[in-house]
Amino acid sequence: MADNDTPRNEISQLGKFNLISKLTDDIKLEQPTTVVGPGDDAAAARFDNRLTVAASKLFLENVHFDLSYFPLKHLGYKCAGIAVSDLLAMNATPSQLTVNLAVSNRFSVEAVEELLTGLRACCHYYHLDIATLDITSSVSGLAIGLTAIGSVEPDRLTRRTGTHENELICVSGDFGAAYAGLLLLQREKQVFETTGNSQPDFEGYDYLLERQLKPEPRLDIVEALRKNDILPTAMTVVSDGLASSLLHICHLNQLGCTIYENKTPVDPLTFQTLRELKIVATTVALNGGEDYELLFTVKQDDYEKVKTIENVSVIGYMTEPNAGCNLITNDECQISLRAQGFQGE
Amino acid sequence: MADNDTPRNEISQLGKFNLISKLTDDIKLEQPTTVVGPGDDAAAARFDNRLTVAASKLFLENVHFDLSYFPLKHLGYKCAGIAVSDLLAMNATPSQLTVNLAVSNRFSVEAVEELLTGLRACCHYYHLDIATLDITSSVSGLAIGLTAIGSVEPDRLTRRTGTHENELICVSGDFGAAYAGLLLLQREKQVFETTGNSQPDFEGYDYLLERQLKPEPRLDIVEALRKNDILPTAMTVVSDGLASSLLHICHLNQLGCTIYENKTPVDPLTFQTLRELKIVATTVALNGGEDYELLFTVKQDDYEKVKTIENVSVIGYMTEPNAGCNLITNDECQISLRAQGFQGE
Repeated sequence: MADNDTPRNEISQLGKFNLISKLTDDIKLEQPTTVVGPGDDAAAARFDNRLTVAASKLFLENVHFDLSYFPLKHLGYKCAGIAVSDLLAMNATPSQLTVNLAVSNRFSVEAVEELLTGLRACCHYYHLDIATLDITSSVSGLAIGLTAIGSVEPDRLTRRTGTHENELICVSGDFGAAYAGLLLLQREKQVFETTGNSQPDFEGYDYLLERQLKPEPRLDIVEALRKNDILPTAMTVVSDGLASSLLHICHLNQLGCTIYENKTPVDPLTFQTLRELKIVATTVALNGGEDYELLFTVKQDDYEKVKTIENVSVIGYMTEPNAGCNLITNDECQISLRAQGFQGE
Repeated sequence: MADNDTPRNEISQLGKFNLISKLTDDIKLEQPTTVVGPGDDAAAARFDNRLTVAASKLFLENVHFDLSYFPLKHLGYKCAGIAVSDLLAMNATPSQLTVNLAVSNRFSVEAVEELLTGLRACCHYYHLDIATLDITSSVSGLAIGLTAIGSVEPDRLTRRTGTHENELICVSGDFGAAYAGLLLLQREKQVFETTGNSQPDFEGYDYLLERQLKPEPRLDIVEALRKNDILPTAMTVVSDGLASSLLHICHLNQLGCTIYENKTPVDPLTFQTLRELKIVATTVALNGGEDYELLFTVKQDDYEKVKTIENVSVIGYMTEPNAGCNLITNDECQISLRAQGFQGE
């Protein structure tokens, strides 16, 4: 818990309406589209001549996050970012976030404030307004329900479907770092539980921890695609592993794919750390999960334009369905892609 | 659990994507505003020249519902209805629902299907499209996150604020019945736990059980207000008790209010049942909660129009703030309204 050293106020004492006021009174609405912000029955926004897009997520303690190594502020930032990522995968511009929290009496007012600080930091950075906030009690731990709302011109909406044979498969950023960060955090938790040593040694691993604790939604990529006049033919966000997302896109579009190990971006620190942990980097890059990078396809004609965009890699191409979904390894073997992403989460 | 007699399939065996497909493959989109339905990263809708309105709710097992007496189908219907009710309180027309479920391995595929059947029945009845569905795992019980999305003309949006001194306080339907229904269900649960007798005797109590298990969002009232050319000056939905909602409206508008016990609608069956249970009906009507009726204010000039609307009662009027918030009892005593609605839920 993040509130060990600070005075503790009970939520039950403060009361629900007072707590919500305390958390939202100084929220300034930034979005011209926000008509109704926190404090009413619902949020209201106005998007003329644009599609309204909404992405809802539900995060539960001990399923989606472990508070023993996850600071509440980071958790808030990360959850908001994940909801925003789903919206970006539709090529939409995010503008509002609705927030529903369920908290057990284990959590103090200060703990909820920490969480809100993180949510608000993400909203501020990506220019979203928190449009509603509601808080209920929980019998076991923390639950976070978020809906990111945004809009897009109808002709720029991107779906998971819409790609064709021979189109290029592109990804933003790099893969496997968030999972490597998770392994480090889990290792330190185990050390702490065994030895009681609470001074984790994370020096030099900043990037991996950041990718796990504070993944950034790729608004920059959506904006760069627009600027470069590229409309992806299909797009999704990679949350449960690149292989899983790719197989899903192939399945929905009834196509196969070929991607290349040597084109799949993995940060050098991810490689090095996984080698130390005796884990094959490519397996983690394909199946690690929590990357929250964009996976999208573009027409071959867009190759010259897409290759100029920073932080975008072309990793392969769509094929006819009978060819299957394949990875060409560094030693030029062809192996079938399999989803090892988490089941049921 | 509702699936005692039916074959049980494990969710982990079926897999998340397959389960979602199974639950959504035969969903037909009805709303012309729905551009993207289930199966993508987010929902998309199109409302030109209208405000987009979104209401998000989070429901947790053993906080908001007790599955020992709550059939999953009814639960689905009720939760969807509650989300829709929040939207109606903004005077908006509901059109889409996003659904996020978290289920522990206690729940079978059939149990999740039961829940979906209820959600879909409510959506069908009120003409909403289920626009996204996502399922995650849970370590303890069932969690349901819903966002109802709709729209309204900008000049017909109703807020919790906007009322003035002397305006009329109106409510839809009647109060206390859902709480009376809850008491009956709790009594039968106790009988079952003590005697093992699982044949509850609910004959004649249908209305109370229905109000608890299947409350209906008051779309009829929103439509009647429009038809009668009445624009409420403030509106909210009564979820935690009439007194609590009324005090909240008074607080937000910095006004007082006077309501009359003899004008506050309570169904005869509620009266009779509560008398049997030796509970004062007015206390339950004011503080019982889960009524999901609309509470709204209208200008005095609208009195003639509003009194013709079926299922609407004028129960009092707004006053200057120093007069306080008062109930005039049947024997003409004036007592201060207090909120005894649940704290923290």
